Amino acid sequence: MKDQALIFVTNDDGIHAPGLRALIGLAREMGEVVVVAPDKPQSGMGHAVTTSSPLRIKKIHTEDAYQEYSCNGTPADAVKVGEKVVLKRKPDLILSGINHGSNAGINLFYSGTMAAAMEGAMSGIPSAGFSLLDYAYTADFGPALPYLRKIIRGMLEGRLTPHTCLNVNIPAVPSEQLQGIRVCRMGKGYWEEELEERTDPHEKPYYWLAGRFVSLDPHNDTDEWALKNNYISVVPLHLDLTEYKLLESLKIFENHDPHHT
Amino acid sequence: MKDQALIFVTNDDGIHAPGLRALIGLAREMGEVVVVAPDKPQSGMGHAVTTSSPLRIKKIHTEDAYQEYSCNGTPADAVKVGEKVVLKRKPDLILSGINHGSNAGINLFYSGTMAAAMEGAMSGIPSAGFSLLDYAYTADFGPALPYLRKIIRGMLEGRLTPHTCLNVNIPAVPSEQLQGIRVCRMGKGYWEEELEERTDPHEKPYYWLAGRFVSLDPHNDTDEWALKNNYISVVPLHLDLTEYKLLESLKIFENHDPHHT
Repeated sequence: MKDQALIFVTNDDGIHAPGLRALIGLAREMGEVVVVAPDKPQSGMGHAVTTSSPLRIKKIHTEDAYQEYSCNGTPADAVKVGEKVVLKRKPDLILSGINHGSNAGINLFYSGTMAAAMEGAMSGIPSAGFSLLDYAYTADFGPALPYLRKIIRGMLEGRLTPHTCLNVNIPAVPSEQLQGIRVCRMGKGYWEEELEERTDPHEKPYYWLAGRFVSLDPHNDTDEWALKNNYISVVPLHLDLTEYKLLESLKIFENHDPHHT
Repeated sequence: MKDQALIFVTNDDGIHAPGLRALIGLAREMGEVVVVAPDKPQSGMGHAVTTSSPLRIKKIHTEDAYQEYSCNGTPADAVKVGEKVVLKRKPDLILSGINHGSNAGINLFYSGTMAAAMEGAMSGIPSAGFSLLDYAYTADFGPALPYLRKIIRGMLEGRLTPHTCLNVNIPAVPSEQLQGIRVCRMGKGYWEEELEERTDPHEKPYYWLAGRFVSLDPHNDTDEWALKNNYISVVPLHLDLTEYKLLESLKIFENHDPHHT
């Protein structure tokens, strides 16, 4: 199966990002590769989709087992366009990244990288998003590659269940410090925002959104813990956010006469 | 508690949307209300946040127990700006909507309305997103209001657990057909995309993203079922997407020597 696998690759840092090149390199070892990536950076776009303006795609490179296109939309758009316009069939895998910056824990909700992987999961295609905790253009993806190769091979061998995907985050450490892979759960945490106020030349205020991530989850089975301890974190995700524990107690809302409360 | 409650209201259809007005009206019955809503429609923005351009806010209306601002960002931005710049403290509730169009099932991932509610859940504030299955500007929010009032009161009474929120969807039917509230789980489904190809005056192709939602989940305990049967669906959500069932089988990735596969 590996030889004929059709692997779709995208990202959210855009078609020129070094992390995308690293992932394409890995994918090309394992099958036919089609890339559709945003034509400009789309970090922090979350699961945005483009329905009020038209999408366009641009052919960048085509040879037998390797095609590359850019798209003017978001990462989620790129997956949809890739499947319906470029491939016209379902790929065997969707790989997204390698993102510059962490998508661990709840960061996945803001992440275009992870939105692309979750699009794949929605369509029933084994998918993964990869992120390196290094924003530098010169970030070194090398130390992680043997581990990512193993993960991608596992995906091709059918290790994921239908409608699931992986959130893979990589600590920014040299090979000799990398401790291996930890399969873990999403750590709990939140962003403590700091909106920095500045004044423009017209004396009007504006704000920069910044902040720091606060972990609420000190346990050693989370992605945050794994990354802090120099492990590559692998979190399997599904798409069901239902808080089942609340279903019973909220039945009080089902009283049919809302005028009597 | 109700009298002094501080209620933050936002949406994704923008400050001028009729659905926002309906929700503001409800909120003002129950406490002090502060609105920060996007200055233009932000449908389909998912959980996007704005970090590469500055945010601005504009005061629209202020009186003692009611303040209204617009913001040039996304719904998630509006919550962050609202909390840190306008309120400077945590509100008791975050209400988002009433959205024009369904956010049931996996649609919540694309939804700015639900991103705002999930932002609230991240911050530990009881939050809810409300959506009416009617895109018309003249959509009638009236039939749902008594039910939403009941839900919001329940939230103020502490019915949610920390870091959870509600996804509330309303069928577009007149009062006499509305069957009440169903507390349910997220239905499984996906979008079957149809990317319509057109040709511009310069003979270049472009694509419109459209499609239809396909339910994979015929059971009567889902939001899709509730809405089809004229119930208001209430789905409690948490923020943990971990697929716990896969944690054990994926441990095979933890082999420390990735070169031996």
